[in-house]
Amino acid sequence: MTSKIEARLKALNITLPPPPQPVANYLGSKVSGNLLFVSGRKSELIGAVGDEVTEEEAKIAARETIITMLAIIKQDLGNLDRIFGVEKLNGFVRSAPDFTRQPMVIDGATELLIEIWGENGKHARTATGVSQLPFGATIQLEMIMKLDTGKG
Amino acid sequence: MTSKIEARLKALNITLPPPPQPVANYLGSKVSGNLLFVSGRKSELIGAVGDEVTEEEAKIAARETIITMLAIIKQDLGNLDRIFGVEKLNGFVRSAPDFTRQPMVIDGATELLIEIWGENGKHARTATGVSQLPFGATIQLEMIMKLDTGKG
Amino acid sequence: MTSKIEARLKALNITLPPPPQPVANYLGSKVSGNLLFVSGRKSELIGAVGDEVTEEEAKIAARETIITMLAIIKQDLGNLDRIFGVEKLNGFVRSAPDFTRQPMVIDGATELLIEIWGENGKHARTATGVSQLPFGATIQLEMIMKLDTGKG
Repeated sequence: MTSKIEARLKALNITLPPPPQPVANYLGSKVSGNLLFVSGRKSELIGAVGDEVTEEEAKIAARETIITMLAIIKQDLGNLDRIFGVEKLNGFVRSAPDFTRQPMVIDGATELLIEIWGENGKHARTATGVSQLPFGATIQLEMIMKLDTGKG
Repeated sequence: MTSKIEARLKALNITLPPPPQPVANYLGSKVSGNLLFVSGRKSELIGAVGDEVTEEEAKIAARETIITMLAIIKQDLGNLDRIFGVEKLNGFVRSAPDFTRQPMVIDGATELLIEIWGENGKHARTATGVSQLPFGATIQLEMIMKLDTGKG
Repeated sequence: MTSKIEARLKALNITLPPPPQPVANYLGSKVSGNLLFVSGRKSELIGAVGDEVTEEEAKIAARETIITMLAIIKQDLGNLDRIFGVEKLNGFVRSAPDFTRQPMVIDGATELLIEIWGENGKHARTATGVSQLPFGATIQLEMIMKLDTGKG
């Protein structure tokens, strides 16, 4: 059984890591009708952008956070081909007081989602600055994805 | 007419308070198809965690905020048995600059939702740190719940 | 072909501006079943409320941000009459450390949505304080709207 999306990831030179366990008693994602609510996921990178972390580093961390989320989603759904596309992405960026280029950081996530799912990967989005995130992380992302119900 | 959920709340020694009125011209919750969007609700507790407020106090405040939200939802829907389960919980924690254990605080809300709704109460979640919340509150929670449409 | 909503906007003395282009590679809004996820949109006004910006100025900026979002939605959907109403509004307010009246600021958005869509414009809502927003903006709004599918 070949996964189309995993073939796509391989073509992009992306290897899914082992899915991390939630730090608390909640789900990595939850199916709701034809939507998938994906829990907030922090980056491995820690520190505030504009302070310990550069915009370029943060953008890469946003991309890597999506890869971690895909590992969680694969574990939850069994197969990434069950994802039809991306409806909404929310990105929180831990920001130094004067850092205001949150959209450019979250582009790291947006661009990867479109590389993987093409037109269906295009999404509505909000990129917000916050002063603190769980465990000092630089980025936190959450998504609403659309499941492939076989009805297009 | 016995409410299953209210019997469950009684068994948990939880009494619903009178539902507070919104401080502005919006709804406490809104039905959308088989989803219920529940408005952001602040804790009674005020102060930043890691500063005036401890992690333990904030976790209790998260649990109490859910109880207040249930009072609002009961008023809006007439009967809490109309709730099938919880899809998504978002928690904002007013955090001192170095407080990073937001997930442990929001666990106070997550744990209660699972005590009440069991497996169906398990949810996707995001816990985020912010520098300020309405009226100086420690916690702000919002949810997407699933309605029981009688179709399982 | 007369648009009911545009007639309503005219009666309210509101002229839609040219829709701004997203600053990054994402959609202004995305249709998902009978919902419309509307991307986070920043205000033109910059500065923190309680610091460079007053509560009154911020409330007006929230109203104006909705008008900009309507221009984007009109461009995306072709006709604002395709919107049935508003399910959920999220408002982020860039706040000075001691500013806690975020709900009163976001009322500027809520009130306009109800002026336009009446009872169907009433919505669930969350108003949160943050320390920084894209490009230093005072306000950031996002919405989930309900589409008119002709099924009421």
